Amino acid sequence: MWLIRNAWYVAGFSEEIAVGQMVARRILDCHLLLLRHSDGAISALVDRCPHRFAPLSRGDFDGQTVTCRYHGLGFGRDGACTHNPHGSTAGLRVQSWPIREQDGLLWVWPGEAARSESVMPPRYMLDESVAYVRHGYIHGNADYRLMVDNILDLSHVEFLHPALGTPEIRKAAVEVTEESNAMRVSRAMKQEVLGDGLAYVYGTGGQPVNRTMTVDWSAPSNLVLTVDIERQAGRTGSQSLHLCTPETGNSTHYFYTASMLRKDATPDQFDAFAGALARVFMTEDKPMIDAQQERIGGQELSALKPALLKIDKAAVLARRKLEQLVALEATELQ
Amino acid sequence: MWLIRNAWYVAGFSEEIAVGQMVARRILDCHLLLLRHSDGAISALVDRCPHRFAPLSRGDFDGQTVTCRYHGLGFGRDGACTHNPHGSTAGLRVQSWPIREQDGLLWVWPGEAARSESVMPPRYMLDESVAYVRHGYIHGNADYRLMVDNILDLSHVEFLHPALGTPEIRKAAVEVTEESNAMRVSRAMKQEVLGDGLAYVYGTGGQPVNRTMTVDWSAPSNLVLTVDIERQAGRTGSQSLHLCTPETGNSTHYFYTASMLRKDATPDQFDAFAGALARVFMTEDKPMIDAQQERIGGQELSALKPALLKIDKAAVLARRKLEQLVALEATELQ
Amino acid sequence: MWLIRNAWYVAGFSEEIAVGQMVARRILDCHLLLLRHSDGAISALVDRCPHRFAPLSRGDFDGQTVTCRYHGLGFGRDGACTHNPHGSTAGLRVQSWPIREQDGLLWVWPGEAARSESVMPPRYMLDESVAYVRHGYIHGNADYRLMVDNILDLSHVEFLHPALGTPEIRKAAVEVTEESNAMRVSRAMKQEVLGDGLAYVYGTGGQPVNRTMTVDWSAPSNLVLTVDIERQAGRTGSQSLHLCTPETGNSTHYFYTASMLRKDATPDQFDAFAGALARVFMTEDKPMIDAQQERIGGQELSALKPALLKIDKAAVLARRKLEQLVALEATELQ
Repeated sequence: MWLIRNAWYVAGFSEEIAVGQMVARRILDCHLLLLRHSDGAISALVDRCPHRFAPLSRGDFDGQTVTCRYHGLGFGRDGACTHNPHGSTAGLRVQSWPIREQDGLLWVWPGEAARSESVMPPRYMLDESVAYVRHGYIHGNADYRLMVDNILDLSHVEFLHPALGTPEIRKAAVEVTEESNAMRVSRAMKQEVLGDGLAYVYGTGGQPVNRTMTVDWSAPSNLVLTVDIERQAGRTGSQSLHLCTPETGNSTHYFYTASMLRKDATPDQFDAFAGALARVFMTEDKPMIDAQQERIGGQELSALKPALLKIDKAAVLARRKLEQLVALEATELQ
Repeated sequence: MWLIRNAWYVAGFSEEIAVGQMVARRILDCHLLLLRHSDGAISALVDRCPHRFAPLSRGDFDGQTVTCRYHGLGFGRDGACTHNPHGSTAGLRVQSWPIREQDGLLWVWPGEAARSESVMPPRYMLDESVAYVRHGYIHGNADYRLMVDNILDLSHVEFLHPALGTPEIRKAAVEVTEESNAMRVSRAMKQEVLGDGLAYVYGTGGQPVNRTMTVDWSAPSNLVLTVDIERQAGRTGSQSLHLCTPETGNSTHYFYTASMLRKDATPDQFDAFAGALARVFMTEDKPMIDAQQERIGGQELSALKPALLKIDKAAVLARRKLEQLVALEATELQ
Repeated sequence: MWLIRNAWYVAGFSEEIAVGQMVARRILDCHLLLLRHSDGAISALVDRCPHRFAPLSRGDFDGQTVTCRYHGLGFGRDGACTHNPHGSTAGLRVQSWPIREQDGLLWVWPGEAARSESVMPPRYMLDESVAYVRHGYIHGNADYRLMVDNILDLSHVEFLHPALGTPEIRKAAVEVTEESNAMRVSRAMKQEVLGDGLAYVYGTGGQPVNRTMTVDWSAPSNLVLTVDIERQAGRTGSQSLHLCTPETGNSTHYFYTASMLRKDATPDQFDAFAGALARVFMTEDKPMIDAQQERIGGQELSALKPALLKIDKAAVLARRKLEQLVALEATELQ
């Protein structure tokens, strides 16, 4: 499986877990338990009691200690056993994962804890005082890399999302800029007449605009799509986050965020934007990518020798980087 | 898996696909797309875009070109790419299968295309000007060979289909005639008093008749069952086609056709015949064969050492021929 | 798989099968058919016709003979073919399993028939003239050993079944007595104030009582839990049978019985006891054990290196005995 462990992944939105609450979620094939403690801090424990392997998520959490419902063992935020009704707590521990809360996102590190310290999760500051922000989620029955490919190659918008695309997208020059574990893909559409929906969102008055779509990918699977619109009435735009986290080797949590600056849009315009994004994700992207995975089956994409088009450049480069990261982890394990 | 690739299989009925329509169907473990073009001709393409493996069946078909909804590649009837919005079409192709339309049936050839040219699908002419004809379909969760066995040994009719059988069936002499890749199994019942349902269908007036049931099998999996009735009022009879196509190694498309000559039956008599066939297929044959497969599990029937009765003669001979065909294909692949 | 074949297992309750009836049930991964013959005797046949492997349970049983619905073969209580409409019955036979009916339970022996003769199923006499008796069943999606562990370590009652437990249970001294293929685990709670539900069941009037819980396990998977209550008004108590039979390697039939002596309880008190048992089995034990198995996955429990607590002593000893029995069977097979 092409899973990279030493990396930050989004495990959820901050707002999902109130103080004293817990959420169970499978991440990189591990059953994880996310807990919000009384002091507001978050922790991530493996959701499996070390005694008899009952899920801790079936137990109780009082804001300090999660207590297994089977035999009453209690565990604190670092996973150490703090209460054993039947004897000593010595040596009893459930594994914890590094977790960071930042920008309204919960980031977890499935790999070696020590390594996480020198790496920061990417920053996705979404300041709600200046921007409208709406969260969304889809579950994909597909390898996370198909979802990354999907955003790295926006030439699909014209075909899969007719309401959002125009033929200008495919005619646009695409610029790919690589960094070590990141990539920027930018395409600039000149004098593009947007469809009615986007014309309303961006207030183009039906006039041609210059639209630039910039995708910033950071390995393994987080993407920001920034849309910049140059119109007669000045600039406007939107941003969306596409944060893909492998649930298993062939299923993916896809957390996304739609945002527009308050100065650029009315609440109704933003509603239209966020609604369109939710609609196409659920009814167009997800069914297509799930179907694509179904046709690929359990095989590795490259083993099927896909026809390579020039539109695949960024996706191919990204997969090459992912392969290097996987190979690196494999080497280090030896 | 005991799948023979170099053979004609029924993929559907002609009437299923109107001009400009397409139907996706899995045949011999391959996702296939059947298309009826503007000129009425039919084609069969592998339902998987060679670029990113999206199912073409999720796309659009205008009667000439099927267009992938993911990135807009278009393919013509032979599978060649005729439209690439992102560059050249050179070298882009989706595999096509030989297909023939004949007698209201769509026949496909999953093996080497070149070989198909010298082989004709079996003829099953059903002239609706002289015969009533009704089509039906069941999906079996079973190896197609169990369905072939079922028709090759009609001694089961008395037990599984009490409304259609009598003890005379088992007492009848059975004649098995082998040809190279075909077989005829015939059983003649003398002075048989049919049950009320069949007495009505064949207009026996409750009198004893001589009933002959002849099964013509052609490898791998197509069968014709011809029933001939000698009664006081003269001859009558019926015919049914049993066209079994492996969907996968352990599931089967079972296309069938009921027919009677118009001179032999009123519309109501034919209705009764076709209705009985549909009923027993769905409520008696399919559940039994699915249950049989469930008990056999993933094992090869012969590995379980079934008790052999004389009624199994034709089925045993047919499986021997199928084994030879499979062995032949395996040899040729080396 | 840790399945022991040379042992008696409960396949059902006597009352489940009236004269002339049959019940299909999977036991130790074998599809079994339990039949009650006209003379009241019970038999156990493998539910698969030796001819074409159709389930005999889809056929008919007239109290003497079970007749396959596919081709009409008939089998008697010992599995010998007694009727072949198509020829001789010689050599036709379906496998039968040793079966004993005793104490209202149907016991089957999945191993070598000859060995069963010298072994008696355990006696669980429940005399309804002196005791109230109620049967129950749950299906567990778990290895039967997790269900055995669950009863061998009743320290879970306090945590998983708050209505039935008190902290006294964990403070009680536990005594484990081993026999060759059996074990007794006893824990004595002193001056325990039972919760409202049990206080009503045992008529404690809210006063502290001495409660002793004794579990008698006999390998592989049958347990009796005897509760003895010493209260001011004299002794009372209850008994429950926990008869676990592997359906497959990771699913279990759990037959249970609740009983109280008529002299110890009113019908309402017994109702309350049996109702509580049914409720906690279905809503507390089963979900927890299924979830535990889900977290363990396909792995062997010991391979996951569970943390061992002193409360696990009996379960560990029992698993050791089971390992010896499995190893013994493996040796004998060589």
